[in-house]
Amino acid sequence: MVKKVYNVAIVGATGAVGQRIMDILQDKNFPIGELKLLSSERSAGKKIMFNDQEITVEVASENSFSGVDIAFFSAGGEISTTLAPIAVKQGAIVIDNTSAYRMDESVPLIVPEVNSDDLKEHQGMIANPNCSTIQMAVALQPIKESFGVNRIVVSTYQAVSGAGLAAEKELENQTKQYINDEEMSAEILPVGSDKKHFPIAYNALPQIDVFEDNGYTAEEMKMINETKKIFNDETMSIAATCVRLPIVTSHSESIYIEIDQKGVSVAQIREVLEDAEGVVLQDDPNTQTYPTPLAATNKEPIFVGRIRKDLDNERGFHMWVVGDNLLKGAALNTVQIAQSLIENKLV
Amino acid sequence: MVKKVYNVAIVGATGAVGQRIMDILQDKNFPIGELKLLSSERSAGKKIMFNDQEITVEVASENSFSGVDIAFFSAGGEISTTLAPIAVKQGAIVIDNTSAYRMDESVPLIVPEVNSDDLKEHQGMIANPNCSTIQMAVALQPIKESFGVNRIVVSTYQAVSGAGLAAEKELENQTKQYINDEEMSAEILPVGSDKKHFPIAYNALPQIDVFEDNGYTAEEMKMINETKKIFNDETMSIAATCVRLPIVTSHSESIYIEIDQKGVSVAQIREVLEDAEGVVLQDDPNTQTYPTPLAATNKEPIFVGRIRKDLDNERGFHMWVVGDNLLKGAALNTVQIAQSLIENKLV
Repeated sequence: MVKKVYNVAIVGATGAVGQRIMDILQDKNFPIGELKLLSSERSAGKKIMFNDQEITVEVASENSFSGVDIAFFSAGGEISTTLAPIAVKQGAIVIDNTSAYRMDESVPLIVPEVNSDDLKEHQGMIANPNCSTIQMAVALQPIKESFGVNRIVVSTYQAVSGAGLAAEKELENQTKQYINDEEMSAEILPVGSDKKHFPIAYNALPQIDVFEDNGYTAEEMKMINETKKIFNDETMSIAATCVRLPIVTSHSESIYIEIDQKGVSVAQIREVLEDAEGVVLQDDPNTQTYPTPLAATNKEPIFVGRIRKDLDNERGFHMWVVGDNLLKGAALNTVQIAQSLIENKLV
Repeated sequence: MVKKVYNVAIVGATGAVGQRIMDILQDKNFPIGELKLLSSERSAGKKIMFNDQEITVEVASENSFSGVDIAFFSAGGEISTTLAPIAVKQGAIVIDNTSAYRMDESVPLIVPEVNSDDLKEHQGMIANPNCSTIQMAVALQPIKESFGVNRIVVSTYQAVSGAGLAAEKELENQTKQYINDEEMSAEILPVGSDKKHFPIAYNALPQIDVFEDNGYTAEEMKMINETKKIFNDETMSIAATCVRLPIVTSHSESIYIEIDQKGVSVAQIREVLEDAEGVVLQDDPNTQTYPTPLAATNKEPIFVGRIRKDLDNERGFHMWVVGDNLLKGAALNTVQIAQSLIENKLV
């Protein structure tokens, strides 16, 4: 039997997420025929090793997608808006890492552990959710399936790498300035394109992405709207407060949920999480076992701990959920969507 | 008219909070007759300037409190348990900064903006609440008074200085180790006396204080129980998740509340906060105005921003509350209790 292979393109191949997509494709022996690495003019011409092959990065253009089976887009919303529909028209399935198409009704928004069935409806374009949304969905899926979840209140503890390599560099520079008793210079966080910038080192910024008219940030509204779409449940109550912190990688989330079923114990919640796909339970107060962002970095699963019953609402539970925002929060979930397409013969 | 003066003792005078109490007494021209600085044997003999007077630190003992009107205790629970009752017996009013007496029914637990009336019942001992409790109580008091608050879900973002000078030093050392690509050594956080220690630099630790049998940490239970006592309201539902972060000073809190009254707007919440004692409103998404721990450090008030109505529960509101944990969270509140005693002729 000859194993089927697929021609793959990565748009944004030289970026942080693009690089990680390449690493994961290689690690997981993804069945690749030809691999095209695409970028802006600035990075074109670079040579990158994939397996034992040297590949030259080409400029992404309207003519890049003929013969491509799967195109991973991770070069910002504008590039996706311009080129992704062209790639689809040329016969590629696009898996888009930007927010450009996530809330488009004709585009499935996929966390494979939760809603891979929605892939069956795809029309060529598939969206990868926001990093903070993905890890919450993976952790809550087994609980929702077993006991129902009708309410979520989440406060996030997000890493700077979610804002790109320049934000990581900014934290590094500010830390050195702080240690040397110099004034910290801020040009990127909380949002590069916004009017004001504040230091992130030794600080907490309660703004991720720009503010919307209702006083919530775009990041908070992504968590709210994308979670409802992924769970295909418009009736869930969801509230989010998103905060950037001086952490390099891995997002943490303090999550309060209310479930449908009465009389459920912490032990039962732990049990369904222990058996769940993509989740690792780290929850034992007696041995101080709980997830932390440093320990979760470069790991594939989503880690869950600090599970407690609310002291007043018997359907209420609190938990602490941590995941690598660049892996499961971005590159890994993207590749898993492609794997799921292949497994279900949808490509 | 001769201004009345009071003989004051500070137990734990050489510690971080003791030092700040001295600074505040001096800044506020507290009416001091004689000032006694007390400490363990290790620090006794040190000479400290207060106003223009050099004071020699003495060993705190059973014989330290004769003639003392007000004794500030800030040297750990054990010292308070041993010496505070003796100080009271010798006629001093004790204002205790430890958790030793906070939940004692005969001891008022005071945030002056909220419940200074409870001082009238004092029997010589008064307790200063936990830092994360104080700032939440100050922010919620005006809202509770105007609209009723029956439910709180809080996730904290707490600074290392809350764990003492050694924890601050640990963050500094780990940061340098991280920058130099060395392994980080952890000996103090999350809890010096607990079994395991984890790095705090570039990390988030969902444990402050030890775990209790119900899976909550002692810090979380302090926030829950102390808040009920300060508001004199056992019926409030309160849940807390407490997290330590690589921030030097000032705690932040993501707070969700449900109020009694229907139809209240964000504008109305802002209005009562604007007029409130001890609160500064910093809340304008259009100009990216919101509190941050770096900006709140060395400031006296509690800062409130990011006020939003919940999208599903019309009695639900979210907000972001920041305060200097060493000032209003500790030393300042302690001195304000003493000022309130004097104003109300209770000393």
